[in-house]
Amino acid sequence: MNYEQIMKLALERGFYFPSCEIYNDAQAGFWEYGPNGVSLKNKFVELWRREMVRRDGMLEIDGSQIMSSSVFEASGHLASFADPVVQCNSCKSIYRADKLIYEIANEVVPENADLEDFDKAISEHNVVCTKCKGKLGKTRKFNMMFKVGIGPEAVPSYMRPETCQSLFVDFPRLFKVMRGKLPVGLAQVGKSFRNEISPRQSLIRMREFYQAEIEVAFNPKTVDAIEGFKEVEGTEVGLMVDEKKTERMTLGEAVEKKIVPNKLIAYYLGLLVQFYHKAGVDVKRSRFRKLGAKEKAFYASVAFDFEVETSIGWLELVACNDRADYDLTAHGKKSGTNFEVLDGEEKVLPHIFELSMGIDRSLYTIIEHNIRDEKENDRVVLSIKPYLAPVHLGVLPLMKKDGMYEKADEIYSKLKTKYDVFFDAAGSVGKRYRRLDEIGCPLAVTIDYQTMEDGTVTIRKRDAMSQERIKVSDIEAHVQKETSFP
Amino acid sequence: MNYEQIMKLALERGFYFPSCEIYNDAQAGFWEYGPNGVSLKNKFVELWRREMVRRDGMLEIDGSQIMSSSVFEASGHLASFADPVVQCNSCKSIYRADKLIYEIANEVVPENADLEDFDKAISEHNVVCTKCKGKLGKTRKFNMMFKVGIGPEAVPSYMRPETCQSLFVDFPRLFKVMRGKLPVGLAQVGKSFRNEISPRQSLIRMREFYQAEIEVAFNPKTVDAIEGFKEVEGTEVGLMVDEKKTERMTLGEAVEKKIVPNKLIAYYLGLLVQFYHKAGVDVKRSRFRKLGAKEKAFYASVAFDFEVETSIGWLELVACNDRADYDLTAHGKKSGTNFEVLDGEEKVLPHIFELSMGIDRSLYTIIEHNIRDEKENDRVVLSIKPYLAPVHLGVLPLMKKDGMYEKADEIYSKLKTKYDVFFDAAGSVGKRYRRLDEIGCPLAVTIDYQTMEDGTVTIRKRDAMSQERIKVSDIEAHVQKETSFP
Repeated sequence: MNYEQIMKLALERGFYFPSCEIYNDAQAGFWEYGPNGVSLKNKFVELWRREMVRRDGMLEIDGSQIMSSSVFEASGHLASFADPVVQCNSCKSIYRADKLIYEIANEVVPENADLEDFDKAISEHNVVCTKCKGKLGKTRKFNMMFKVGIGPEAVPSYMRPETCQSLFVDFPRLFKVMRGKLPVGLAQVGKSFRNEISPRQSLIRMREFYQAEIEVAFNPKTVDAIEGFKEVEGTEVGLMVDEKKTERMTLGEAVEKKIVPNKLIAYYLGLLVQFYHKAGVDVKRSRFRKLGAKEKAFYASVAFDFEVETSIGWLELVACNDRADYDLTAHGKKSGTNFEVLDGEEKVLPHIFELSMGIDRSLYTIIEHNIRDEKENDRVVLSIKPYLAPVHLGVLPLMKKDGMYEKADEIYSKLKTKYDVFFDAAGSVGKRYRRLDEIGCPLAVTIDYQTMEDGTVTIRKRDAMSQERIKVSDIEAHVQKETSFP
Repeated sequence: MNYEQIMKLALERGFYFPSCEIYNDAQAGFWEYGPNGVSLKNKFVELWRREMVRRDGMLEIDGSQIMSSSVFEASGHLASFADPVVQCNSCKSIYRADKLIYEIANEVVPENADLEDFDKAISEHNVVCTKCKGKLGKTRKFNMMFKVGIGPEAVPSYMRPETCQSLFVDFPRLFKVMRGKLPVGLAQVGKSFRNEISPRQSLIRMREFYQAEIEVAFNPKTVDAIEGFKEVEGTEVGLMVDEKKTERMTLGEAVEKKIVPNKLIAYYLGLLVQFYHKAGVDVKRSRFRKLGAKEKAFYASVAFDFEVETSIGWLELVACNDRADYDLTAHGKKSGTNFEVLDGEEKVLPHIFELSMGIDRSLYTIIEHNIRDEKENDRVVLSIKPYLAPVHLGVLPLMKKDGMYEKADEIYSKLKTKYDVFFDAAGSVGKRYRRLDEIGCPLAVTIDYQTMEDGTVTIRKRDAMSQERIKVSDIEAHVQKETSFP
């Protein structure tokens, strides 16, 4: 199924929908998760917490979204976190320069290119305003941070454009009070904010979005001594070795061939691929793309984008950046705080390797990679991993009479606080199964006349569409077995 | 233990600490949750989800924090969500008028009072600037919403000052696509933002804070027909019947005596008390305080504050407001959307009953109500409910040699993704127990010489400080039994 079909499903089945949609001044790039979206997102985050944070003994924090100016002076965002924009001299429409050039002339000018490169491309290809054909002005930088004023004095502060800045700023306290030892992962899941010029495609490019970021602080001298490497050595990944070619190889081979620079980076790339595999993303359709100098973020020394193939092209789900000592040096200098820590006997300013995950895009990908329009069965089915399913169990009384409704309600009430259970008594059972299939519910029990006689129900499985009779007292064991995290 | 002692613990044990603390321009009212705080908060939210949202079949969403101007024009926040402030004519210091008057003259002028009431109190009690003794200007209103500009055109929008506005604005879609039936609870947990004049006391009054809000949409004609009432009828609550007196009575009695106006409100107040009881708050030290006309928020027709007693006085944890049709009428009118729905055969504009919970304050209260300085045992122990404990299990090798470290690591690795497990090999075992006690860890296993011989470990329980030997293979069953949600 393609993007448009999934968008329709999302809107009609409570996955996600535009924010403030009843108002004319609703702004693009803001979305709401409905009940099925919230449930999917929470489970995705729980899987991330299990398979990344807890598995690696990381320190997870939850920091403020509004942060003081100093943070972004030090981080470089105030100076450098800007998009190239051009404005029409006539109608004053504003465009993102790189997008406009690509749209009109099909030429790629990387977003971090020099301003002259955009002006040159605009003039060469005779790019004009798409609305009024007017001449475009010079390309300028537009800072993408949202500014807010704090207190009655309106002290300038900013909505964080990435969650990781708190992880850097909090590092000295965290390392001390949590008795850290290098390498140590710092993690955070939360909202970030970017004043995009052209938000687009629902969850793909938003102005307010969820990130799950991990910043691993490590001693640059011991990058090949990481123990965990053996857990991922045999994990196969796709690696773009040049502009056109992706090779599949194990992370062991990738390190040997120096495509991945060291074992520490390989370990975390491996965790990531294993995580997405468990999340139900088809990792055979994923790749790590090594970024060139002009494509990389301004703080990165080595960068891989983890990308997946979807109906709307290759999507970047995770930016994997070796930020070296850029951040800790910058915050140390600006604040006068010492960021050095002890690694054994050695005093060291840690380097940072980052896995910056976009949650919203990941959820979109999980839906797209797992949804099928099964025309032969007259259904759309979201064959999502059962532990990520928005609803674990449907409880369906065959009819509302003869005690079936009450019996079903009793079953529902027993399980509803512990699992995500949906009670549905409306329409034919076949229709109710179809509705549950669309939201990925892996199990449904039907309470019928036989239930009233012998205490059994029909349990129906989503993928096989199989049905068998089990005892009411065995329902919970079935749900637990089928929907437990791996 | 009192506020200051808990603050110290929070800072030193990774519960919470000030945001941007390494910088001079860190702003008051912004806090970070450290690893133990995040873990506690996540479990608290999970309990809320189980005991309120799922138990009542509510629809949970996760909406944008930045919302368009129309939302707050309709809601009344642009006009009315403002604090009374006074500025010193000489040194230009700004104060919140009601707080200053209370501080200096001990007189309570409610924050929603008319502006003249503040000026009158200031003049009567001769209140002057506390910094320079200068004369104060006239009281004016300061809007507490943070404004942000969207896109290169900087379209004015606002950080939501309460999460509930998305629930109102999204109501038509949610009711339709989720096939709602009245009464239906809409729920959301997330950040809200208020530009407080005087943030104070860490988690108590923040500028960026977590709410868990529930908005129950109901048919005002059938408030006494709610089925769930029987589940709470016998629940005892404290009700402030007048300024000075709190009476404890069942919710059944409270409805009978018309202190609580109807069974629907009583049902949700009951759920709330049951929830806090399960969260480990001492509900014998709680009360519902009925608010007077000048104390109530501008949208409320009936309002109860759920308050708990702490070392810093009575804290409001939840605002329980009957908002009547204020919100849906306002958004319907402003947007031109029809908010009416069918209740059986009847077309009805639902009324709203709200439970607006402050998460951060709730967490503070849970810590304070459960922490003890046990001098006789030379420990501080956080006797929190085991299912809310930041760490479920400590794994402690007696020594680092003779295979004990590796055995402990093996036990740790088996459980670490599923539970919150902390591996600690530093210092004496007694000292390690004390550290786990402070963060509320209910169970710890010690791996010693005997483990290497017979495969048993010592399991130690936090509250009783009891120790017994169990098989390594039984550890998981113990952890599961002790830390499962009720």
